[in-house]
Amino acid sequence: MKKIRIGIVGAGRIGRVHARTVSSDSAAVPVAITDIDRAAAEDAASVYGFARVADDNSQLLNSPDIEAVLICSSTNTHADLIVQAAQAGKHIFCEKPIDYDLSRIDWALEAVERAGVKLQLGFNRRFDANFARVKKAIATGEIGTPRLLHIISRDPEPPPISYVKVSGGMFFDMTIHDFDMARFLMGEDVEEIFTAAGVLVNPEIGEVGDVDTAIITLRFANGGIGIIDNCRQAVYGYDQRVEVLGSKGSISTGNCYPNQAVISTSAEIRRDLPFNFFMERYAESFASELKSFIASIVEDKPTPVTGEDGRIPVLMGIAALRSYKEGRPVKVSAISATTADSVTSAKRASRDQRRDS
Amino acid sequence: MKKIRIGIVGAGRIGRVHARTVSSDSAAVPVAITDIDRAAAEDAASVYGFARVADDNSQLLNSPDIEAVLICSSTNTHADLIVQAAQAGKHIFCEKPIDYDLSRIDWALEAVERAGVKLQLGFNRRFDANFARVKKAIATGEIGTPRLLHIISRDPEPPPISYVKVSGGMFFDMTIHDFDMARFLMGEDVEEIFTAAGVLVNPEIGEVGDVDTAIITLRFANGGIGIIDNCRQAVYGYDQRVEVLGSKGSISTGNCYPNQAVISTSAEIRRDLPFNFFMERYAESFASELKSFIASIVEDKPTPVTGEDGRIPVLMGIAALRSYKEGRPVKVSAISATTADSVTSAKRASRDQRRDS
Amino acid sequence: MKKIRIGIVGAGRIGRVHARTVSSDSAAVPVAITDIDRAAAEDAASVYGFARVADDNSQLLNSPDIEAVLICSSTNTHADLIVQAAQAGKHIFCEKPIDYDLSRIDWALEAVERAGVKLQLGFNRRFDANFARVKKAIATGEIGTPRLLHIISRDPEPPPISYVKVSGGMFFDMTIHDFDMARFLMGEDVEEIFTAAGVLVNPEIGEVGDVDTAIITLRFANGGIGIIDNCRQAVYGYDQRVEVLGSKGSISTGNCYPNQAVISTSAEIRRDLPFNFFMERYAESFASELKSFIASIVEDKPTPVTGEDGRIPVLMGIAALRSYKEGRPVKVSAISATTADSVTSAKRASRDQRRDS
Amino acid sequence: MKKIRIGIVGAGRIGRVHARTVSSDSAAVPVAITDIDRAAAEDAASVYGFARVADDNSQLLNSPDIEAVLICSSTNTHADLIVQAAQAGKHIFCEKPIDYDLSRIDWALEAVERAGVKLQLGFNRRFDANFARVKKAIATGEIGTPRLLHIISRDPEPPPISYVKVSGGMFFDMTIHDFDMARFLMGEDVEEIFTAAGVLVNPEIGEVGDVDTAIITLRFANGGIGIIDNCRQAVYGYDQRVEVLGSKGSISTGNCYPNQAVISTSAEIRRDLPFNFFMERYAESFASELKSFIASIVEDKPTPVTGEDGRIPVLMGIAALRSYKEGRPVKVSAISATTADSVTSAKRASRDQRRDS
Repeated sequence: MKKIRIGIVGAGRIGRVHARTVSSDSAAVPVAITDIDRAAAEDAASVYGFARVADDNSQLLNSPDIEAVLICSSTNTHADLIVQAAQAGKHIFCEKPIDYDLSRIDWALEAVERAGVKLQLGFNRRFDANFARVKKAIATGEIGTPRLLHIISRDPEPPPISYVKVSGGMFFDMTIHDFDMARFLMGEDVEEIFTAAGVLVNPEIGEVGDVDTAIITLRFANGGIGIIDNCRQAVYGYDQRVEVLGSKGSISTGNCYPNQAVISTSAEIRRDLPFNFFMERYAESFASELKSFIASIVEDKPTPVTGEDGRIPVLMGIAALRSYKEGRPVKVSAISATTADSVTSAKRASRDQRRDS
Repeated sequence: MKKIRIGIVGAGRIGRVHARTVSSDSAAVPVAITDIDRAAAEDAASVYGFARVADDNSQLLNSPDIEAVLICSSTNTHADLIVQAAQAGKHIFCEKPIDYDLSRIDWALEAVERAGVKLQLGFNRRFDANFARVKKAIATGEIGTPRLLHIISRDPEPPPISYVKVSGGMFFDMTIHDFDMARFLMGEDVEEIFTAAGVLVNPEIGEVGDVDTAIITLRFANGGIGIIDNCRQAVYGYDQRVEVLGSKGSISTGNCYPNQAVISTSAEIRRDLPFNFFMERYAESFASELKSFIASIVEDKPTPVTGEDGRIPVLMGIAALRSYKEGRPVKVSAISATTADSVTSAKRASRDQRRDS
Repeated sequence: MKKIRIGIVGAGRIGRVHARTVSSDSAAVPVAITDIDRAAAEDAASVYGFARVADDNSQLLNSPDIEAVLICSSTNTHADLIVQAAQAGKHIFCEKPIDYDLSRIDWALEAVERAGVKLQLGFNRRFDANFARVKKAIATGEIGTPRLLHIISRDPEPPPISYVKVSGGMFFDMTIHDFDMARFLMGEDVEEIFTAAGVLVNPEIGEVGDVDTAIITLRFANGGIGIIDNCRQAVYGYDQRVEVLGSKGSISTGNCYPNQAVISTSAEIRRDLPFNFFMERYAESFASELKSFIASIVEDKPTPVTGEDGRIPVLMGIAALRSYKEGRPVKVSAISATTADSVTSAKRASRDQRRDS
Repeated sequence: MKKIRIGIVGAGRIGRVHARTVSSDSAAVPVAITDIDRAAAEDAASVYGFARVADDNSQLLNSPDIEAVLICSSTNTHADLIVQAAQAGKHIFCEKPIDYDLSRIDWALEAVERAGVKLQLGFNRRFDANFARVKKAIATGEIGTPRLLHIISRDPEPPPISYVKVSGGMFFDMTIHDFDMARFLMGEDVEEIFTAAGVLVNPEIGEVGDVDTAIITLRFANGGIGIIDNCRQAVYGYDQRVEVLGSKGSISTGNCYPNQAVISTSAEIRRDLPFNFFMERYAESFASELKSFIASIVEDKPTPVTGEDGRIPVLMGIAALRSYKEGRPVKVSAISATTADSVTSAKRASRDQRRDS
């Protein structure tokens, strides 16, 4: 069997998750890993059996014995690394998002196109057994034509304010996954977005120009309507559910739990909390997405999450932010790289407006 | 439409439940009610629109304008009242059990037979929507041939010791319903019973010769096996479930709740307790059984719970008690009116044995 | 105990439901009933024990022996009957909505105010055990400050087109209940409404100027955000759920089922469909709302659903329709009786626009 | 960190499961593997990174560079291999059961005792998150004193008749896990067993002297009562549930599913079947038990499932079989190595009896 020789840029949390999958996938060979914190790279190399630690990104990306690279470094490095990897002829798995700036996204995707390498974006939730089951129900016609979509996506706790300041805001650090899920499930693109949002969890989040609670209404090309429900705090844990109403039925998924036990006492019927956050909740999907990427190379077929799949959720995020800022529905087609709608400027404008009001 | 003129003996809790159903059933006319506590009868008559209060049982049972009587007085009066009512030519609805003494049961059933009147026993649970659904699944072949039956039947709290002393014991005051349910669901009679039981809730229950916790294994005529799980105390409320495994599938029913709400907090996922006891849990079934009785008379068809259905669970109770007493499986066919196995003597023997041990 | 003497205008489906409750409530005396179909009134009078059938509305409303009237006739008669009943000094229970025209609503409410009689609107869902439990969780602080509200409200099948033509449209014949529920649960009024809606079920519904599917976003006065999900067709039955996310937890309610049985076969784990429509699903709430109304009179306390509670959902419906028509969020405060926003003219405009597009 | 050097005897299904865990456990070093099918051993060595394939069991068990061995060969070899491994001073993980013959079990356990090595039996279900949660509820007093235990344990399909002939019968190939679970959960030993069993699935199973359906009643030392419900066929999949009623509440666990999706159609509310069999259902527990074994060596502490834990379920199996054969409750204390109760003779007797009847 053909084996793919793999290098990883970034030995942080998600880098280690992927390193582990590489080490246990019989179609993958763990070759090299690198990180700005060399000790972190060395530890990961040792635990997951990578042959060597590369001195830096460039050395790793240009190693002749590596066929595919996993970009697991911070978001601001993604576009540059995609371009370098593409120019070096490596297949690329990149964590989402590519960038917050549409022109940089387009620049990266052009490099991939020119090089003819494969690119897969890290929208791991598509590989979760629950959402995959929903997708299947829609794709096979099990529930008929979809009419209404609900995505509930709530974090257990807000991230630190320091993160909120640089993340691009909730629509880009959190909703981006839900934008992808909406497209993935419905098999349709979104034409118009209306955002109702606010700061209901922590005023400090508002002070740095972000929101923490939102209902985002989506109008799909086929007339279907969807909503995304986001909150940066659900005290009972990580809340990840979807529901789709179709012409022949509906499908809905519940949360995932560490155990199925139900306890009945004189006070209540209860069960333990669901998985607290994404590392437990989506553990299997992280492995599945990487196996799919490796299989795409081995079998030379398209990756299941393309560069375009990485670009469109950013467009949607920009539209959602503009809708929030201007208090009106916004068409996704109105967002383009040439407008002032990059998230950076949009965010700046948003902050200005808030300062004024 | 033909209307049935009805009299009720007993204006206690269950008498009032039936009085209310009579008052709202368009096929029934509330004629008379009686009770040893005349004030209770008068109140019920006023609230539920009964035309008169009878002076005593005899006067009511012999009223020419009454076609059917509901016997809702204490168990020790049932057999006598059935005989009197039958002799007066009235159709009879009688609360369970007919009696604890097989010879008295047979005497009462013979009177019914001789008079040619209808008799229905108050096994209301057969009319519960959940158990009726299970019955339907078995009767229609939806789950194939039944192999294993579980009946979970637990009370929220033990009754007062004064009640335990006169009730005939747990197998007669509580399991009797489950014995009927076992026969009803499986559509088969039980050939052999093995009882594992003990006093795990309250030692005082043991001191008066009864048990409070039991697993009763049933061997059905067709080879199927069942268990009844009884406990006089389930702190979370009234626990009433069944499950049947068949050759083509299984069916199981859960408890019934006052509401469907689920609350998620930082400590747990919880819901409110199920209905606490039989008056709430089986409210609809009490009405349904009586409507069935009335319809049986109007349409002149057999009642859905016959005298034999009232007799057999008593046989089963005697077998269960003997199995417990003797520590071995007991065949139901070995129980007869001529043996010393009336519950009274069995109970006496049981107490003697306990005193000796 | 004081008993309230009651008359009912309208012996159709809901009139009979209330007649039955009156007949079984020991605090109510069924006095008279009337209907344009006299035979219907006579049948109801006979079944539910009403002393007489009134010749017409006027005769009933002016009967000196009646203290309270239940208005169960068609919507177009409500305002007039409220005014007549108020002038006759009767307490009034009126089915929703009062009217679609704000000026007529105000006229009716002024008559009630002037007469000093009690008025209760028939928002029965407030009395459903599930929604009442959600309300309690919010009111007692069990889930902290509410942030996000979901109301799922879907009918099993669309009504006949003939009904859609005269009903005022989906926002008035269906969402009106959800508008009330939103206010009731959150304990806050809605400031702004955005409607995304379409015709996804049956094109004929669009041809008569109505929609059949909608997501309506609500901004509450306290910053909370809600959505109402409506569809005129859910093939699995009547879908009535709510979910509220608060600062300390969430509460959600599921649908109600005729039984709790779960069947497991070689193909699937399944259960029977939920209650199919409102008569079964809300049976108990119809009785509860009327008992509350009667208790309000007996104990001389305010009714639990006031005239204002009847008026505001109509305002919200007008705002939802305008938002749909104009494709932008609309403030409820912008709706007033003096604008051209009565549902009639709004509907006309909507039709015109559709014809143009 | 100390690493344990491991050898595996047997490269079949369960051998490969453990080989995989060894390869990914940072505290274990995969050294050698052997199998009577050398190709199977070579493939497993290659996939899971074992340094070498041993020529035979003896060579592997006597390798000086191996500290612990995993015995994953067929049951009839377990006792011999345990003795050899113990004599070679290796720590031992052995799949259940040790043997069906009590004298051979005792011989093996004595060898372990004499050698002072660690022994862990493969009762993996103790490590399942669901059953571990039940154990915790009992151990911490969350549900008070346990009174009633239900273990539902049903296979999706009967094994081949060829397997039934040599497996020792259902009580030894299937119930053995449930006997262990009963002791593990209740924290008490079983004093008396009563078996009601039959051939309800496939007559061929009866023809070779085994049963396929059983209810086994257990009397615990503390007075608690339990039942084990076994069937060799549950068409909906692998059914593995427990429920415990205690003085302060109950705990119950449901089955595990590949996804949480619920589909609602015009016919039913349904979900996909649970995991079909033990490899999926208990995947995590197989890894957890082995990690526990390795940790027991690294930290030099007792293993969580001892030799005695392996012996007692065999005693219980013999008692269950005798109860079935003789139609009466049997005390576990009555079973000993010196009686004729080894499963072999018991089985023979059972067959004889069946031939006679």
